[in-house]
Amino acid sequence: MGREINFASDNAAPAHPAIMEALQQENNGPAMGYGNDATTQRMEDRFKDLFDCELRAFPVATGTAANVLALATLTPPFGSIYCHKNSHIQEDECGAPEFYTHGAKLALLDGEDGKISPEDLKLALLQSGRGVVHHVQPAALSLTQVTEGGTIYTADEISSLTAVAREFDLSVHMDGARFANAIAALSCRAADITWKAGVDVLSFGGTKNGAMSVEAVVFFDLEKAAEFEFRRKRGAHLFSKSRYLSAQLDRLIENDLWIDLASNANQMAARMATGLQRAGRPLLHPVQANILFTRLDEKSIGKAKDAGFLFYVMGEGDEAPVRLVTSWNTTETDVDQFLSCIG
Amino acid sequence: MGREINFASDNAAPAHPAIMEALQQENNGPAMGYGNDATTQRMEDRFKDLFDCELRAFPVATGTAANVLALATLTPPFGSIYCHKNSHIQEDECGAPEFYTHGAKLALLDGEDGKISPEDLKLALLQSGRGVVHHVQPAALSLTQVTEGGTIYTADEISSLTAVAREFDLSVHMDGARFANAIAALSCRAADITWKAGVDVLSFGGTKNGAMSVEAVVFFDLEKAAEFEFRRKRGAHLFSKSRYLSAQLDRLIENDLWIDLASNANQMAARMATGLQRAGRPLLHPVQANILFTRLDEKSIGKAKDAGFLFYVMGEGDEAPVRLVTSWNTTETDVDQFLSCIG
Amino acid sequence: MGREINFASDNAAPAHPAIMEALQQENNGPAMGYGNDATTQRMEDRFKDLFDCELRAFPVATGTAANVLALATLTPPFGSIYCHKNSHIQEDECGAPEFYTHGAKLALLDGEDGKISPEDLKLALLQSGRGVVHHVQPAALSLTQVTEGGTIYTADEISSLTAVAREFDLSVHMDGARFANAIAALSCRAADITWKAGVDVLSFGGTKNGAMSVEAVVFFDLEKAAEFEFRRKRGAHLFSKSRYLSAQLDRLIENDLWIDLASNANQMAARMATGLQRAGRPLLHPVQANILFTRLDEKSIGKAKDAGFLFYVMGEGDEAPVRLVTSWNTTETDVDQFLSCIG
Amino acid sequence: MGREINFASDNAAPAHPAIMEALQQENNGPAMGYGNDATTQRMEDRFKDLFDCELRAFPVATGTAANVLALATLTPPFGSIYCHKNSHIQEDECGAPEFYTHGAKLALLDGEDGKISPEDLKLALLQSGRGVVHHVQPAALSLTQVTEGGTIYTADEISSLTAVAREFDLSVHMDGARFANAIAALSCRAADITWKAGVDVLSFGGTKNGAMSVEAVVFFDLEKAAEFEFRRKRGAHLFSKSRYLSAQLDRLIENDLWIDLASNANQMAARMATGLQRAGRPLLHPVQANILFTRLDEKSIGKAKDAGFLFYVMGEGDEAPVRLVTSWNTTETDVDQFLSCIG
Repeated sequence: MGREINFASDNAAPAHPAIMEALQQENNGPAMGYGNDATTQRMEDRFKDLFDCELRAFPVATGTAANVLALATLTPPFGSIYCHKNSHIQEDECGAPEFYTHGAKLALLDGEDGKISPEDLKLALLQSGRGVVHHVQPAALSLTQVTEGGTIYTADEISSLTAVAREFDLSVHMDGARFANAIAALSCRAADITWKAGVDVLSFGGTKNGAMSVEAVVFFDLEKAAEFEFRRKRGAHLFSKSRYLSAQLDRLIENDLWIDLASNANQMAARMATGLQRAGRPLLHPVQANILFTRLDEKSIGKAKDAGFLFYVMGEGDEAPVRLVTSWNTTETDVDQFLSCIG
Repeated sequence: MGREINFASDNAAPAHPAIMEALQQENNGPAMGYGNDATTQRMEDRFKDLFDCELRAFPVATGTAANVLALATLTPPFGSIYCHKNSHIQEDECGAPEFYTHGAKLALLDGEDGKISPEDLKLALLQSGRGVVHHVQPAALSLTQVTEGGTIYTADEISSLTAVAREFDLSVHMDGARFANAIAALSCRAADITWKAGVDVLSFGGTKNGAMSVEAVVFFDLEKAAEFEFRRKRGAHLFSKSRYLSAQLDRLIENDLWIDLASNANQMAARMATGLQRAGRPLLHPVQANILFTRLDEKSIGKAKDAGFLFYVMGEGDEAPVRLVTSWNTTETDVDQFLSCIG
Repeated sequence: MGREINFASDNAAPAHPAIMEALQQENNGPAMGYGNDATTQRMEDRFKDLFDCELRAFPVATGTAANVLALATLTPPFGSIYCHKNSHIQEDECGAPEFYTHGAKLALLDGEDGKISPEDLKLALLQSGRGVVHHVQPAALSLTQVTEGGTIYTADEISSLTAVAREFDLSVHMDGARFANAIAALSCRAADITWKAGVDVLSFGGTKNGAMSVEAVVFFDLEKAAEFEFRRKRGAHLFSKSRYLSAQLDRLIENDLWIDLASNANQMAARMATGLQRAGRPLLHPVQANILFTRLDEKSIGKAKDAGFLFYVMGEGDEAPVRLVTSWNTTETDVDQFLSCIG
Repeated sequence: MGREINFASDNAAPAHPAIMEALQQENNGPAMGYGNDATTQRMEDRFKDLFDCELRAFPVATGTAANVLALATLTPPFGSIYCHKNSHIQEDECGAPEFYTHGAKLALLDGEDGKISPEDLKLALLQSGRGVVHHVQPAALSLTQVTEGGTIYTADEISSLTAVAREFDLSVHMDGARFANAIAALSCRAADITWKAGVDVLSFGGTKNGAMSVEAVVFFDLEKAAEFEFRRKRGAHLFSKSRYLSAQLDRLIENDLWIDLASNANQMAARMATGLQRAGRPLLHPVQANILFTRLDEKSIGKAKDAGFLFYVMGEGDEAPVRLVTSWNTTETDVDQFLSCIG
């Protein structure tokens, strides 16, 4: 096997050819900068159709930017953001949420398979010292969809969580870096697991789903969007040539490309899961999207790496946990070769 | 005339075809994320050759990001940054420098044609209350090359300014959003107006010079680079697919494309300046790069706008100041049509 | 003359004996912390009487704390605060306003005798780029009463300035470190130059007027007070033993002690001004409160310093500007000795 | 019983009469502001004697100010501070550490009786992702002495913890709001549990030990003190009349008053502990200083409150945990009356 096959992350995949074409088409002349262009307007209109509602959709270039700019509009400096203890905003953003919120605190919740339960959320909020000046004040709930455990919240589960949030006057953010994979898996409308289920702001992921580099911050609560543009500029995330970001989002949504790409990733993960189970390997969390966790012996890990497969080993020793992420361009052959390699 | 001709900003131009090709070539398979890829390494090596020295070069996607991440590594929260009162960091970044430095102050200097003089800098530093706890402490000098007035600092001028900075223990940043235009105009080596002239960190512009969206933060003081990567990640400016940023820089520098593109912009500005002078229009600053300022009567402004020309009118009334910016793709025909329109 | 006489600042004076007595009386047993005590409640009630309105009054221990906590409740991080270029918040707080507002910008206005004019304010606001994402957004006006020039805004002058502020949706803060001196000079009600003239929040000074260390942040706009307590705690300015702060304010206001003390300081400044004029010395600004500026020759400066007088010489050379500040405990003898010394 | 007896916190007690005398003595004339006075110098000298070393000692007025100003000099914005999950900096400062460090993260460790173990610290540091750009970087260890559990670290325990800290290049802060109680209990020199045991910066508490309102930030690492004065001023914690803070510290240390006061508090807690055990009440943590935790039935709680005793009930239901804190002015009668009340 001559080439690398990357199961380390879906952000290792290249851009889908249609995205490259869209960028090429965008490159046909001048346009006013900073989002004052036709493509950005068309992109936002497409989001309105996609979500069946009024909204504001702002392109940014990284998932972290989407998350932390969204959270900064929801949380005062003396606020706290409730999230899973393994969430990306806690573990993988080098304190960007604290930077953008000017020092708000992340209040960490545990929960199986990467999911928060309404009971745990409520208990934490009851003990949070609301209204007491010595304590940071609960301000937002941030849910990750697909979770870091590779699992998916159902619309009902989201509604139960946001109901608790509302009871305590929290705003709700969804980190949807893999939102497409959730929609593809649930076969529901985008609205069903967002605004209809109580979400105020969504980080809509593109980069991990076949874009070159783009995410959208989607505000269903229009009032909360008012500050966003100043915070984005001040965060140095307003592109003069914004249209090249918008063009990627526009093309992703057009003709459901985003769903098709996420569906492939999900199917390849399902194929991998089936193969692993047949091989007697455990699945550490339910496999619902494009991320799966298993355990491999050292010999299999070595063999797979020698064969050119890239993936994360989460610890040491024999039977160490292994994370595998499939992508829009993962093929059945990729999966089957991996399975035969570790079989 | 059917199409728009944009003299409003060089960031309105599309990307150069060679940049699009480079992106397409980069799109040929997976790669590890966050800059751990071969293209990013190659790009940094090219910068070392270009500047004839050891350095670190980090890609970011916006000019503001380059400026403020650089400044944040040079300036403590209780520090101050000396800059021209019309500089981009003061006027056009919505307080991003204050955000990224956690509240440092910009100390504003006046100066003709957008340029700071060593005398004014020294006087301001003498009066700054160094070492006195009530006052913010001078920490950095930020020079803009090409200036907002469209003028260029010579190597000697820069050396004189950085000598004052050194005398007062200031670090030196250069906002080189149009660094290429300066190099093209001065016909010198990149080193001559940067590290050899006392500059510690350079914002090397790409977006305004034919890239899609990319700038590099170039550290000549390697020690000051140590914190940079954490600050970039925390600012949400580390791209998972960094290679698409690096590919643009790599291609810009290869075979001096960046110089060729900037030279065209400069030549078109010179042609415009000559034409304006012939038409009896004043030049409000020396025209040394690709930005020029003149005055136009209301009728001419109207005629030019009707003809599809875009540009900024800086005020009101007859004979209002007008700013014209030429780009890598501005043609002689564009310039001549404008001149005949307002002639 | 054996002892020092301090004209350097009114914060060099000790506390008035009545303040020490009040502290001693407060020290008679335990009390719940953090402002949940009877003295703090009584203090706030006294402020309501003093200002003839509903309000919230919060004690803090430094003038800078009062200013920046007030401004932080009025100004978003992407906002700007309009103030005189020589104001304390710009020149003497080491960037505390930027720290507490998370990086808002101070927009500096010039103006004779330390005073801002409504015309200058309006012009600056018209040119501020309101609503444009590239620019920080005007959020607050901060007036200093008594000004750094030792002058006083009349109620009408304040109303004219706050009318401009309202027109542009700015909140209004008053830095009243020497508010007592202004009230004593104007012989008006405290309400006349605050909420009735359009002020939203007042830093009410105590330390420079005979207290040990206390200021009050007085909110006339009750809604804006909501965040204050969290910001104060987070700024580490909530005292567990708050009652010792409140006791000072309570005693200052009781029986108009604050007016009596300020009146003495003002009268001593007036006496000094008369004496200087008789001696042919210029007054660089109108003397309206307890600060005055004159020019002295080197010989007189030396003589006065040798005689034990402390004061600031603002520059170098013969006939350098000199600042003299009188205090609640300055005596006629102090003034006359100084005058005879430099006469 | 007519009066309140406060076991809720040692910050509810008044100031010791000697402190009031010291303030009165300080109030005998003018002095230059901002710490440029003789009392502040004398106070710092006393700290040098007390700790048997060179050091810098800076007075501030609140414990939170001492903690967060100290931590801000040790931790970059992208850093993390390791501390107990129940520590004051995590639970009771409304995010002040995040504010002053510009968004650093608190990394929370569990541990019995409020104490961190070296093993847990080491494990957390090994898993912290040092050097990896996605993760905040370990920067400081903050130990609380006396802990929130009322327990005390021995010199050896501190040395073991700071050895781990050094191994991972962390600076070490000690929150010594009740440092006096620890010294009184351990009967050791102040140096033994601070710089000799690896502590870089100490928050030395005064307010809870008989002062009116004062703490000292004591730097044993002089280099780390360099920034402190700018950060204190910028945090609005530099008093113009600093001498009244210094006078309190000066008097506390003189003739070991601070030890005497803490000893009384400790002895009263021991008496209370003995009484509770005799009454069959549990002690939830070892009683080593002036804080103790027991459980009381609802009836006893009601009886004690009716009798004028103030204290915290940490939860609900019968046999709820109760926290009792003794003070410099707690008497044997106070303790015995409480015991007989709940007996």
